[in-house]
Amino acid sequence: MAALDQVRFLGFDVFGTVVDWRTGVARATEPFLRRHGIEIDPLEFADRWRELYQPAMEKVRSGKRPWVRLRVLNRENLDSALDAIGRPASSFPGEEVDQLNVAWERLDPWPDSVEALTRLKRRFAIGALSNGDLATMINLGRFGHLPWDVIVGAEITRSYKPQPQTYLGSADAVGLAPEQVGMVAAHNSDLHAARSCGLRTLFVRRGAEHGPGQTTDLDPDSDWDVVASSLTEVAGMLGC
Amino acid sequence: MAALDQVRFLGFDVFGTVVDWRTGVARATEPFLRRHGIEIDPLEFADRWRELYQPAMEKVRSGKRPWVRLRVLNRENLDSALDAIGRPASSFPGEEVDQLNVAWERLDPWPDSVEALTRLKRRFAIGALSNGDLATMINLGRFGHLPWDVIVGAEITRSYKPQPQTYLGSADAVGLAPEQVGMVAAHNSDLHAARSCGLRTLFVRRGAEHGPGQTTDLDPDSDWDVVASSLTEVAGMLGC
Repeated sequence: MAALDQVRFLGFDVFGTVVDWRTGVARATEPFLRRHGIEIDPLEFADRWRELYQPAMEKVRSGKRPWVRLRVLNRENLDSALDAIGRPASSFPGEEVDQLNVAWERLDPWPDSVEALTRLKRRFAIGALSNGDLATMINLGRFGHLPWDVIVGAEITRSYKPQPQTYLGSADAVGLAPEQVGMVAAHNSDLHAARSCGLRTLFVRRGAEHGPGQTTDLDPDSDWDVVASSLTEVAGMLGC
Repeated sequence: MAALDQVRFLGFDVFGTVVDWRTGVARATEPFLRRHGIEIDPLEFADRWRELYQPAMEKVRSGKRPWVRLRVLNRENLDSALDAIGRPASSFPGEEVDQLNVAWERLDPWPDSVEALTRLKRRFAIGALSNGDLATMINLGRFGHLPWDVIVGAEITRSYKPQPQTYLGSADAVGLAPEQVGMVAAHNSDLHAARSCGLRTLFVRRGAEHGPGQTTDLDPDSDWDVVASSLTEVAGMLGC
């Protein structure tokens, strides 16, 4: 794996790559939906909530609004998702709605994640390189026992992927040049941006991220430095 | 421990509180000193190097120089320490001197640190809240198997303790109010500054940090919320 010879730090996308957000968010919202007689499949509600994620970050990326943490965007998007099904957030006790937002801190890792991260950590420093805020990443790491050495990404760089600053600022923060950092992600778009910044690229297939009907990111769309079907396979390919 | 009821995150001073810098730096410099016939006790050399630490940071705190990472200050201080014993850094191969600076990433935890952090982590999120830069903290954590959930402190707040911004910025970064953060340190000065910012304060005696002749920080000089003789004792007092 000559392309990775210089790599000393692996930065991981988290939502979708390391943890299963869709099942976790559906699980956390199901009792709320049932209790209030909202007849929507919790998985569909999770999808609708998540669909608002990129447009919300885009307002920050484009400069239309100043830097704001992902947990705040998620909370606003929850209001929008409830509005869209005709049950505005204001019609529920506020603390119940706030509690729903905590779903994003209680997501199960994919079955291979913890073991593979533990193996990769033997040889590389590893960290979350996510759009999630630091508090969410801490709680998610504690919930799923993710053995991060550090958390970098959006919050410490005040920028959202795929902006170059998220990758370049994270590499700088860990004291490395871009080519010494490998970006691990299940999303081709993340890797295109990382490569543009000079990072090495590791693609892991997560064909169930969006459920059985997933149509995106089923395969690599470029010659990424590593292409694997699980993080365990990544660990094996890197000799960990 | 009513004062700590609200605390959800414990931030740890690292050099002196969690790891033994003096023995580690002496161990790393001893072969260099011997090889070059420099007749100084490695422990004394470690002390001299460390003495330059506060004045170097003070130049940044006072605004006399812009933000710079601790590893850079340590490297400059090494030059000064070598100058002071009449053997300027320029008289050695550059890479040998650079390698000495890595001593600060290879420091043994105090014997109780890892077990106590592991216990404390069950109930609290834990993180380095140090003046060390992120890369040094990552390497130190990996070397000593320190189970941090996150690394905050100087680098992410671009400020050196005891400046308020290091404490307040770290609390904000982990999404908490100051009173929800406990500062754990072996240095009274660190705790005075933390308390001024509204953090809770936990003092741990480290009477051997400066060797057998230590005269400072042998005892608490205020009514800190917790006073203990080891991190293990801290864990016990907090019911972990």
